[in-house]
Formats: sequence, structure tokens, C-alpha cells
Amino acid sequence: MNYRLIFNTTGKVLRLLSAFLLIPLIVSGINLELASCFAFLLTAVISFLIGSLLVLNCPIKSNEMFAKEGLIIVALAWVLVSLLGAIPFTLSGEIPSYIDAFFETVSGFTTTGSSVVTSIESMSKGLLFFRAFTQWIGGMGVLVFIMAITPKSTDSPIHIMRAEMPGHSVDKLVPKAGNTAKILYIIYIVITLLVIIFLLCGGMSLFESVVHALACAGTGGFGIKGDSIASYSPYIQWVLAISMLVYGVNFNMYYLLLLRKFKVIAKSSELRTYLLIFIGAVIIVCANIFPLYENFADALRNSVFQVSSIMTTTGFATADFNTWNSTAKATLIILMFIGGCAGSTAGGFKISRVLILTKKAGNEFRRIINPRRESVVTFEGKKLDESAISGVLSYFVIYILVFVGAFFLLSFDTTYGFETDFTAVIACFNNIGPGIGAVGPMGSFAGYSAYAKIILSFAMLLGRLEIYPLLLSLSPNSWTRK
Amino acid sequence: MNYRLIFNTTGKVLRLLSAFLLIPLIVSGINLELASCFAFLLTAVISFLIGSLLVLNCPIKSNEMFAKEGLIIVALAWVLVSLLGAIPFTLSGEIPSYIDAFFETVSGFTTTGSSVVTSIESMSKGLLFFRAFTQWIGGMGVLVFIMAITPKSTDSPIHIMRAEMPGHSVDKLVPKAGNTAKILYIIYIVITLLVIIFLLCGGMSLFESVVHALACAGTGGFGIKGDSIASYSPYIQWVLAISMLVYGVNFNMYYLLLLRKFKVIAKSSELRTYLLIFIGAVIIVCANIFPLYENFADALRNSVFQVSSIMTTTGFATADFNTWNSTAKATLIILMFIGGCAGSTAGGFKISRVLILTKKAGNEFRRIINPRRESVVTFEGKKLDESAISGVLSYFVIYILVFVGAFFLLSFDTTYGFETDFTAVIACFNNIGPGIGAVGPMGSFAGYSAYAKIILSFAMLLGRLEIYPLLLSLSPNSWTRK
Repeated sequence: MNYRLIFNTTGKVLRLLSAFLLIPLIVSGINLELASCFAFLLTAVISFLIGSLLVLNCPIKSNEMFAKEGLIIVALAWVLVSLLGAIPFTLSGEIPSYIDAFFETVSGFTTTGSSVVTSIESMSKGLLFFRAFTQWIGGMGVLVFIMAITPKSTDSPIHIMRAEMPGHSVDKLVPKAGNTAKILYIIYIVITLLVIIFLLCGGMSLFESVVHALACAGTGGFGIKGDSIASYSPYIQWVLAISMLVYGVNFNMYYLLLLRKFKVIAKSSELRTYLLIFIGAVIIVCANIFPLYENFADALRNSVFQVSSIMTTTGFATADFNTWNSTAKATLIILMFIGGCAGSTAGGFKISRVLILTKKAGNEFRRIINPRRESVVTFEGKKLDESAISGVLSYFVIYILVFVGAFFLLSFDTTYGFETDFTAVIACFNNIGPGIGAVGPMGSFAGYSAYAKIILSFAMLLGRLEIYPLLLSLSPNSWTRK
Repeated sequence: MNYRLIFNTTGKVLRLLSAFLLIPLIVSGINLELASCFAFLLTAVISFLIGSLLVLNCPIKSNEMFAKEGLIIVALAWVLVSLLGAIPFTLSGEIPSYIDAFFETVSGFTTTGSSVVTSIESMSKGLLFFRAFTQWIGGMGVLVFIMAITPKSTDSPIHIMRAEMPGHSVDKLVPKAGNTAKILYIIYIVITLLVIIFLLCGGMSLFESVVHALACAGTGGFGIKGDSIASYSPYIQWVLAISMLVYGVNFNMYYLLLLRKFKVIAKSSELRTYLLIFIGAVIIVCANIFPLYENFADALRNSVFQVSSIMTTTGFATADFNTWNSTAKATLIILMFIGGCAGSTAGGFKISRVLILTKKAGNEFRRIINPRRESVVTFEGKKLDESAISGVLSYFVIYILVFVGAFFLLSFDTTYGFETDFTAVIACFNNIGPGIGAVGPMGSFAGYSAYAKIILSFAMLLGRLEIYPLLLSLSPNSWTRK
């Protein structure tokens, strides 16, 4: 285990955080919010000091890095950044409890969007911006994460992580690995800017446009109003619905778009499945909620928005789907588990994995009818080897086990009943944001105990980092020197 | 596809049903219940005629039988027997709606125990006996089913079914396959008789003892009172709690017991896991519900009873666990999915599969830390090959998909909310009986629409027959002549 590399890199991440903190500091300054100004400044200083301490005390002697080191860095960085990022909320007095603030920050950096804030309208602009900004950074972090661990290792268990982005990946298209990250960032930033412009065109203020565009980019879902997006114009709602859908697509598709490889895009089975599930879900939900709305346009807009929001695990809402009837709710719950495409900022189990699992299961089933049939699973035109499939299958098992474990641990909090608890875990673990019941789109997670908030914070981290990094960091075996 | 064999065998099963129907006919006769007497007689005649028609019209020309034929026979037999078995309920007027009666009969033959009867105390003795008797036959049927498909085929996809009873199986111990079934039946009957005797010793009437022993044998759970077992003495409750636990064990263990192979039994990892999960769950539930009871003995008895009942998928109840708090409820919900041991009459996903899945997932996880580690999964002392593991993994995927599908289809019925719908599907699909909410142990499934009852009936059949047989019968591909 290369400890120096781990702590050195984590230190660099913290210094990066302190630089990032200057932006909400400026926003607070412009709005003359002195308390949050001070809070951001102090947090930036603390982050810089801790970061520098780590960097200086752990000079890198060897660049040797296996999957293990990469995964632990990711877990450590995400947890530390959340611990530090929580400080401004508490220091400014706007979220007095540190655990609440930690939950809110984890929810930000994991691009979840679950909130403990009950009167969001009274929050200062600096902190509102910061909330959305954490989601934007989180989204970017996920893209780095994918890049960082996919190409570097050549040892065998990498197929487990490869499952993150099977099929086309930018690193196979771009000769130099360093350029890959750059291209993804540029795409990410350009789409963010486009969304800001579209929102401005709808008459939104610059502040609101930026906040919503940032929260949308990370498929996060932190808004600035108690009713999320419900009180905005239909135009704004359509813009956000489509933006969310755009962020749920594998980012490699956009790079392929730049390269004008339209045929490759058209052939992508993940993209096709993503769109088919989206359209199918919209039809089901729209047909189901139609009687609740005055006209078809309203029903359609609300269906498209909610399906897009849940499927991409963003969590914005234009309607309180708590009040929808059971088929629409069941559809949304199922979508929560599926999530977006691999290689996007969306969370959940991911379309690519769902595709691989269903293909494999279908194969095994057909082999009962025709035992001599060979079991071949192809994905994006390539045959997957048994160990890759086995990796996805095992991930599914661990995913369900972690989900069940989190649900069990949450049950010790007796504040709410089954529906709220169950969907709270789904919403956090899959990085969606709102669940159903008390944690619905118009509710909040504030009512949960500190214990429950810690459990749910870890559920968010586990989900966002695809379980292994955090599990690995918590396993004593991985910390032994060899 | 050997159609003649399929229809001929199904015909024989129906003739067997008509013979079985004579027993409740006698019970009705003794109690002078003329309406049910007539109903049983007529149903017996119909079954015999249809059965004979099938047998005579489809003389067997070839005994060629692959896994496919076996699976389709099982599915067809279970559906037909349920369709016919429903007739007495409707004909006697005690369950006027045929769909309700079908639900009740499927619930019986699949040893589920979910009921649509709201005033069970007013039902005639003949039909009460018949309800429990269907569960006893169902339990026996499951044992035949295991025997029938495991040893006969040697073609490759059999590992999928082998997963049903990995490790020790009687057919490897007994030279002649025919004897295997006989041994299992004798064990089944002897345990049933023992339970009857124990219940009689507790002062239960003969009728009640027999009914409860039959319902317990199939891990079914049809009682004769609205509050299930709650109003019986602690002695009776302890007897039933232990009996249920006994039926949830792989029956091969009892055969090994007869052979005095105690060491092999002691080494069985499935049995050990089963008992560990049982003890662990009892501790959690007991600690959790202790404040609700007057003394420790009551809390312990209710915990042991409910854990045993849910884990073995029987579904008897001594307490309304709807009123327990969330940790106890969450524990029961998790147990519902796990189920009993393979090779028992219990339903659910089965301990053996849970063991194999967690071992495999643990292996894959450890391979991240140590990539050169070989992935070896052993079960009951034997190394499992990749295709066996892949079969279990794929079964898990299909299991979850079917569960999600059933939950989605049920959502079109808007009678109840999320908790009831979700646990109704769990309870039916895993052949438990009661769920939580309106379908809790003191509630019933009567409030659901006919549509919902059909969906849930199929969920019971899918769960009981381990999905493949029914799925195969519904797939047009399997009916093409080749």
C-alpha cells in the first residue's frame, strides 16, 4: 500500500477545495453576507492548512498505484471534503447542527440533493450558491473518478470498475490519457454554460440560472425554493427537464458527437435503452396522472420532468408525486434503482449494468429450452468475457446487500414508517434526493435523528462511489502493509 | 417437445387430485356438511374425467424427457390443480367468487397461506380441512418436484435447477432414484404425525391438531381462526414454532440423521447459517419488542414464533407484527426474502443461494485488494464450478426482475398504499402468507380487486415453482415442435 501517495493526493484535493471555496466566498461578498463570507474564508484556510500538511508530510517517493490506492483516495477525498464543506453551514449559523450540515454537504458532493433544510427561502445567497456548487464539483469529481481508475490499472479486477463504463469510452478514442479528462471537463462546462443561457432566456435571474444550472449539471437537484421547480414557468421546466436528460447520457456520446461519429452514437445500445425507458416511463406516468391535471400539456410536462428528474437521479420536482397514484409512484421507484447511463453524472445502478444483467439472465433462461446454446453476452457490439459479466453480477449482489443493510440500520430510527424509510434509503443510496412520504419532493430529511442522518450520509457516499471504494477503506485488510 | 408425455403426466396428476379429494369429502361427511360434501364429490368426478381424458388421449410413445418437459409438467400441473381445487370453495358457496377461490387454492397448493377469507371461523370444517390439506399436498409436491427434476437430466442447464439443492442430496446417498422420493415422503409423513401427537398433548382437538399439522408441514400457514395462533396456549405456540423450524431444514438432513451421519450434518454450512440467522433474528426482534410485552417469556415466545414462521415462509402468527416497531418489521421483511433451506418445503430465495451469492460477492471484493487471488466458491465442502455460480447469480437477477414486475403490475390496483402492496408481493412471491399493513397477519387479501388477486396468484406460483417452469410455459419458444 502506497500510503504517501494516498495522503499526498488527498492533501492536493483539499487544497483544491480551498481554492473552490473562494467562489462562494465572492458570491457571499457581493451579497454583503458577512457571516457566510467569514465562514467560507475560515473553511478555505482550514482546508488549505490540512491539505498542505498532508502534502508536505507525505512527499511521494513512488508513483506505484494499483486499483486499491485509487479507490481509497477517492473514498478518503469524498469524506474529507464533505467533513470540511459542512463547516460553512454550521459556522454561518444557517444549519446549526454539524451533523445536519454534514448530511447536506454529503448530499451536495455526492450529487444527491436530499436536504435537511426546511425553510430554504430564508437561506443566504452565498450558501444557496455553495449548495449547488458542491453538486457541480461532485459531478465533475465523478467524471475524474471514472477517468482516474479506468485506464491506469492493468491488473485483473479492473473489470469490476470497467463495468462502470463498458463499451465506448473516451480514453480509447483519445491517444493521451491526460487529454481525456480535459475533454470531459470542457463538455461538462460547455453544457453548464448552455443551460445557464437557456435559463436566462426564460427570464430567470442570473443567480437563479447559475444555481439551477450547477445543481442540474451534477444531476444533484438542490434548488432554492421549498417547492423546488414547481413555481417556475413551463419554459423553465422544459429547459431543466431536457438538461437533466442530457446529463444522464454517457459523456462519451458528446465526444463522439464532436468527432461526428453519428453512426457509432446511433448504434449505442445503452443510449437507445436509456431513451426507450424514458419514453416508456413518460407514457405510463402521463396516462396515469392525466386525470389529475387540467390539460394534456400540464400532464405531459409534469411527467417528462419527473421521469427525467428521477431517472437521471437529479431530484428536482415540479409536482408533489406523493399525491400521484400508485402506478406512477411505482414507476418512479423502479426508475430510482435503474439510474442513468454509465459515464454520466447520474447515479443509480446504471443502464449499462441493467442491460448486461438482463441479457445474461435471458441467456441462462434460453439455455433451459436449448441446452446446447452458447451463452454469449454482447454489449455495444463487443462480446463480454465471463469475468466481466461475473463482475457485474457480483456488483448487483453487493448493491442489493448494501441497500438491505442500510434499510435495516435505518429501521432503528422510529420517526417514520416503512414507506418513508424505504424510499429514503433508495433516494440516498441512488443519489436521487427526494423519496416518497415524509421525505417526498415537498418534504425534507430534517425530521430524522442524527443517527439516521449519518446512516443516510454513508448510503449516499456508498452509492455515489459505487460501493467498493468506501467498503475497501473500511476493510482492515486493505490497510496492512505488504 | 414430448407433448404426449406432458399431457399424460398432467392427466395422472389430476386423477391423483380426484383421489385426494375423497379425504376432505369424508371430513365433510363426518361433520354432516352436505353442501361441501357435494362440492368435493363433483370436483373429484370432474378431475377424474379431465385427467382420464388426458391420459387416454395422449398415450406415451416415448419416455424421452428433458428438463424442459419436466418443468412444463410441473407448471401445468400446479395451475390445473389450483383451477380445479377452487371449485369446492365456490360450489359450496363459502367463497362465492371463483377468482377469490382460485387465489385461496393457489395460496394453498403453493403453501403460501395468504387468504381472502375474512370470517374464517364461520367456514365449514370440511373446507377448513381442505385448505390445510392443499398445503400439505403442496409441500409434498415440492418435494416430488425437487426429486423429479434433479436427477433425471444430465444436460447442461440442469445446474440451474441443481442450485435448488446444492450440497448433500438424498439421491446421491440412495442407490435407486425411486427410493429417494419414498424416503422423503416417509420423513414428511412421520414429522406430520409427530406434530399431530404433540398438538394433541397440548389439549387441542383432533380436528384442530390435524389441520394445523398439515398447514405446518407444507410451511403453509392456513389456520382456522381470525387471529391465527394467538389464542392458543403457550405450549401449542412453542410446538408449532419448533415444528415450523423443523420443516424449514433441508430434508436430506433428516435422512442423514437416519443414517447416523451426524458429522456430515454438523458440517452443513446451510444448516448452520439457517440456525445462525434464526438465532440472530430472534435476538434482534426480542430486544426490539421487549418493551411491548409484560415479561421476557412472552416477548421471547412471540419472537421465536414470528421469526420461525416468517423465515420458514409458513405465515402463522401469534401477534400482529403490524404493531411492532420498525426494526422488528424490517427484520421480518428481510427474512421474508431469504426463506428457508433448499430441499425443504419452505419458499423464498433459499439460504443456500444466499450463501453462494454472498461468498461469490465477497470473493470478487477481496480480489480488488489482492488481484492475483483466485475466485473459488465452495459450498458444503465442494468447489462450485463457474457455470453453477453463474446459474445462481442469474436466478437472483430473474428473481428480482420478477419481483419488480409483479410489484409494478400490482400498482394498477389502487386499493392500498405502498407498504401493503409491496409486502403483499413479498408475501405472495416468497410463499409466506401475511404481509404488513392491510394484508398483515390479522388482515386479509379480500380487499384487493380481482385483477390484483390474479397477479398475486401468479406471483405465488412463480415463487413456489422457482420461476423457470412458469416462465418456460408462457414462452412461445418452448412450445414449438423440434
